[in-house]
Amino acid sequence: MVNSLDNNPPHQVVIVGGGFGGLYAAKTLAKAAVKVTLIDKRNFHLFQPLLYQVATGALSPADISSPLRSVLSKSKNTKVLLGEVNNIDPEAKQVIVGDEAIAYDTLIVATGAKHSYFGKDNWEEFAPGLKTVEDAIEMRSRIFSAFEAAEKETDPEKRRAWLTFVIVGGGPTGVELAGAIAELANQTLKEDFRNIDTSEAKILLLEGLDRILPPFAPELSQEAEASLTRLGVVVQTKTLVTNIEDDVVTLKQGDEVKEIAAKTVLWAAGVKASAMGKVLAERTGAECDRAGRIIVEPDLSIKGHPNIFVVGDLANFSHQNGKPLPGVAPVAKQEGEYVAALVQNRLAGKNLPPFAYTDHGSLAMIGHNSAVVDLGFIKLKGFVAWLFWLVIHIYFLIEFDNKLVVMIQWAWNYFTRNRGARLITGKETLTEFVISDRKNYSADNKQPINV
Amino acid sequence: MVNSLDNNPPHQVVIVGGGFGGLYAAKTLAKAAVKVTLIDKRNFHLFQPLLYQVATGALSPADISSPLRSVLSKSKNTKVLLGEVNNIDPEAKQVIVGDEAIAYDTLIVATGAKHSYFGKDNWEEFAPGLKTVEDAIEMRSRIFSAFEAAEKETDPEKRRAWLTFVIVGGGPTGVELAGAIAELANQTLKEDFRNIDTSEAKILLLEGLDRILPPFAPELSQEAEASLTRLGVVVQTKTLVTNIEDDVVTLKQGDEVKEIAAKTVLWAAGVKASAMGKVLAERTGAECDRAGRIIVEPDLSIKGHPNIFVVGDLANFSHQNGKPLPGVAPVAKQEGEYVAALVQNRLAGKNLPPFAYTDHGSLAMIGHNSAVVDLGFIKLKGFVAWLFWLVIHIYFLIEFDNKLVVMIQWAWNYFTRNRGARLITGKETLTEFVISDRKNYSADNKQPINV
Repeated sequence: MVNSLDNNPPHQVVIVGGGFGGLYAAKTLAKAAVKVTLIDKRNFHLFQPLLYQVATGALSPADISSPLRSVLSKSKNTKVLLGEVNNIDPEAKQVIVGDEAIAYDTLIVATGAKHSYFGKDNWEEFAPGLKTVEDAIEMRSRIFSAFEAAEKETDPEKRRAWLTFVIVGGGPTGVELAGAIAELANQTLKEDFRNIDTSEAKILLLEGLDRILPPFAPELSQEAEASLTRLGVVVQTKTLVTNIEDDVVTLKQGDEVKEIAAKTVLWAAGVKASAMGKVLAERTGAECDRAGRIIVEPDLSIKGHPNIFVVGDLANFSHQNGKPLPGVAPVAKQEGEYVAALVQNRLAGKNLPPFAYTDHGSLAMIGHNSAVVDLGFIKLKGFVAWLFWLVIHIYFLIEFDNKLVVMIQWAWNYFTRNRGARLITGKETLTEFVISDRKNYSADNKQPINV
Repeated sequence: MVNSLDNNPPHQVVIVGGGFGGLYAAKTLAKAAVKVTLIDKRNFHLFQPLLYQVATGALSPADISSPLRSVLSKSKNTKVLLGEVNNIDPEAKQVIVGDEAIAYDTLIVATGAKHSYFGKDNWEEFAPGLKTVEDAIEMRSRIFSAFEAAEKETDPEKRRAWLTFVIVGGGPTGVELAGAIAELANQTLKEDFRNIDTSEAKILLLEGLDRILPPFAPELSQEAEASLTRLGVVVQTKTLVTNIEDDVVTLKQGDEVKEIAAKTVLWAAGVKASAMGKVLAERTGAECDRAGRIIVEPDLSIKGHPNIFVVGDLANFSHQNGKPLPGVAPVAKQEGEYVAALVQNRLAGKNLPPFAYTDHGSLAMIGHNSAVVDLGFIKLKGFVAWLFWLVIHIYFLIEFDNKLVVMIQWAWNYFTRNRGARLITGKETLTEFVISDRKNYSADNKQPINV
């Protein structure tokens, strides 16, 4: 039970994870009569909804990242710790970071999710996902070096494979990636190559269900598919991926099995709980769902541990409508803010009703000036949806200079149809990188890069 | 001898390197009656003078980089090739890229310079230099994780070592780095940490000669040193580094030998020719200087090979005033433009006088609003020099969106005393990275990163 306010050592809140869940919990506690310690293994908060723009060269990582210390520097009750929580001791009320034990009165775990390859972890090296800055930079390298490799390739079949891009997963991330790569091929890079016509690139978007953007209203899924098709993307629903190798993807549509020769495969299909999920479950006896997420109580706490809360993608909250809330930023944000408010209320001897998510809608950008926005009572599409999408994303970017830089960069990209951030970084020389098997990183004795 | 213009296959110019020398040669040839192939191992041109701002978290790599294809896309006679030149065959007039031979009528080699550790190559892992984007990101990681490590360190001596930064080399790069780190410590990060006072950081700038900024007028060197000292930098001239290990730097001042406990050492001291220098010398019999640079003729060609030119940091041009022109951007730019003009003139049956560098002056930024500018007849310092420095750098950035983004970012950084790009990237978890020996990268089975 959370202690009522007294004159003794102030209530210590430890937050693990500086994403939408953890950071908004910390911000909500900024002026509370508690001490807050935020622990993250990175020194910045990442605006994940725009990661696909880093992966397709439109923005830089720093444009969508905010140093945690900077965001929280004015919160004098808040300390930021760069570290990774290895273990939790619920009896002693401590988290273990390296060889240091940090005591808590309230613990908020917000470590998010990571990619899931549905058990086929060996697919990871052939199909990077998009959860971290390094993921985005790896994707970016692969996308742009595919065009470079095609430019040098004399064998027409191999060139076609270099110009074939497969995106697995028809949710917002996959849809936004597919649209962005189509624009790269058809507009941005069109004048830049001499041996290839980049608009001959084939972009496939694969979705296992019967329509893309499953959380959206059906007419918007249809609109999105039509927009993507106009952009040149081939959308294939009811399609499952059964194997991924270095240059071929195997699909299953109904009873039919197909092989696609593709050198670039991008993963936007499955997520599972971060490693903390397992640690939490073992230490607290909490139940997990099939994706490893912690099943939480109506107040987002763990059953039997009213002072340990889980928010964001790591939590499975099904009390509102019978199925778990989706792993999206607004859910994490509201959950983090709720738990922070709850802690303050309880310290003052009060309580709050159970958590209730306010769904303001979903949005996905399709391409240059088209999007779909599902606000429930209103559905937008096309240009007005696209403007709405821009405004919402700018609004939620945390630092003002990020807002300004992203606005400028987007205005520029829009008017010039160009993309300002399409570096291939991470290797000093790319010759072997693009020509041979991508896993052969031995050129110049450079180690494999995961950046 | 360069062929005069005729109706046969157009004159083929091959340019190796897309830096200031190579890129400006290509731009100058954009409308010439020649075919141009620009070969670079990276897909972008890097504005090196601002690399130190990436290293200190003020700018992102993309803000100072321009995709080569994009810059040259309108030059319909120009092809960009991503690759590394392994060899040259002057008899057959070909360069070898991988297993491909590319023929030339005129060859312009502009591959630049790389770090030199004066023979002590083992120092490289302890003291990164600043020539590439990856270098800058490595430096950035080390600088920011040093503060993070200090925040967690309980042993006062070890904490002091984490808060000690040694910059080796008092030229413009070293001076600009030192000033930027001092600002980080004294302003930007001041409110961000709870256990340490970042302004207690000790920043040492070591220079072997008797003053910093040796190419500048003496009174400006003095001004720069005074500015740096006001910022809290300890400037030590007539100081040579004799050894660098993971946490200690050994110096020699006169007869005195000193050891400094420092976890972060940054190299801005020596450069030598890129690897192409050796290849060229072996294949053409060209003479090199002690740093491996090719000694060129008054028209920047190689003796005995009037159709092979060397421009930029790889060239040693001493015909103007007896000593080699410095390895700075304006020299490379003018040399590249000269050779391009020369090729066009000769094709038209004309000639040009020998190359003559027009020295417009030197500039170095000291800190937040201070710089020194030596224009020969005019010397500027303080705030007006700083404004001049900003304008010149914006002017020479190649892409308009870069100019705009950098201006905005600088305006923001200036008014908020903040830095928008201080991510520590490249490792998923930094716990072991910051606490133990930096070479122990075995945490999470991640490979050593050189990004």
